[in-house]
Amino acid sequence: MSLVENLKWRYATKKMNGEQVPADKIDFILEAAHLAPSSSGLQPFEIIVISNQELKQQIQPLAFGQSQIVDSSHLLVFAAWDNYTVERVNEVFARGNQERGLPDSATDAYRKNLLNMLSVKDEMENFAHTAKQAYISLGIAMAAAAEIKVDATPMEGFNAPALDELLGLEAKRLKSVAILTLGYRDTSGDWLVNLKKVRTPKEQFFTFLN
Amino acid sequence: MSLVENLKWRYATKKMNGEQVPADKIDFILEAAHLAPSSSGLQPFEIIVISNQELKQQIQPLAFGQSQIVDSSHLLVFAAWDNYTVERVNEVFARGNQERGLPDSATDAYRKNLLNMLSVKDEMENFAHTAKQAYISLGIAMAAAAEIKVDATPMEGFNAPALDELLGLEAKRLKSVAILTLGYRDTSGDWLVNLKKVRTPKEQFFTFLN
Repeated sequence: MSLVENLKWRYATKKMNGEQVPADKIDFILEAAHLAPSSSGLQPFEIIVISNQELKQQIQPLAFGQSQIVDSSHLLVFAAWDNYTVERVNEVFARGNQERGLPDSATDAYRKNLLNMLSVKDEMENFAHTAKQAYISLGIAMAAAAEIKVDATPMEGFNAPALDELLGLEAKRLKSVAILTLGYRDTSGDWLVNLKKVRTPKEQFFTFLN
Repeated sequence: MSLVENLKWRYATKKMNGEQVPADKIDFILEAAHLAPSSSGLQPFEIIVISNQELKQQIQPLAFGQSQIVDSSHLLVFAAWDNYTVERVNEVFARGNQERGLPDSATDAYRKNLLNMLSVKDEMENFAHTAKQAYISLGIAMAAAAEIKVDATPMEGFNAPALDELLGLEAKRLKSVAILTLGYRDTSGDWLVNLKKVRTPKEQFFTFLN
């Protein structure tokens, strides 16, 4: 089916049935998330992939007790860089040049300009920026899950500092920004599954300047 | 092809050839962007679809002169709500209930709780949040374009306040957060087209907690 059909099929699953998602399907979703575009190709985030049931049980109370946390097969925690640093940016460019067989001089002007632009922004602005890049990947991960008929629930309603502490993210200078639970819908227990999908009317959502 | 194959095909096109994208393909991309998930289904952003060449020429100097602005077929300007307001949130819930044939009482507790949570955040935090929702849609729009072999270049490098003024976004309480140019690659003039796609090594990008 096309992406549009897949997006019509998906919904924010409210009740999952505990069934496991096969490893090759998880790999497909992760592969898509990993290929997602990001600003200057920096990919300023990481993804923590959790299938350990005890850990999910520890996370559930940090996420308002939402049942999908424990009834899902896997949780993806999108964790964005807390800030840009010279080291982080340089590492990305050095790796890119190496993989492309280019001298570092090929990207020096661009890289220095980028570092200058980032250095005048404060940590909060930069974290808002890294988080947005993670959301591009989050969107693509949801599209990937829908393509292979895996249900997914994106969540922002959780205690991020507590989750960061539980997962040891501060030491990696990461902050969790979103959770995506992956699993299968429990149609009998899900109040949302049969409700019509509602979107902003197109005439309000789009402005055409032809 | 699968989404993963489509993502491998796409790249941030640096030079476009001026060819027009047919209307049905633009519609497909817009349909996907419109179906993108968002926090509480609020869709706190709009999309300005620009094909007017004179307007593109006016926008180009606001975007560091990037050639894709004028060599693209269409520009999508993702413009996020500047803030959440009671009116905006209430409108979404009222419409959703109406379309689903539900009484407003069905969502009153959730809606009031949401309004309480939003009211303690300042405008900057809320705008960071609305922008992130727009980026989910941006990611999905890029996936949609790749599926139908339309090239796309996401851009954050532009003078957002000037673009907002040019497009009259302030009166709509919107702020531009990203531009997506849609068109077709000019392979002979694009320095990036033949370079290897580079991503963070998976062992660094993913942490598995099994």
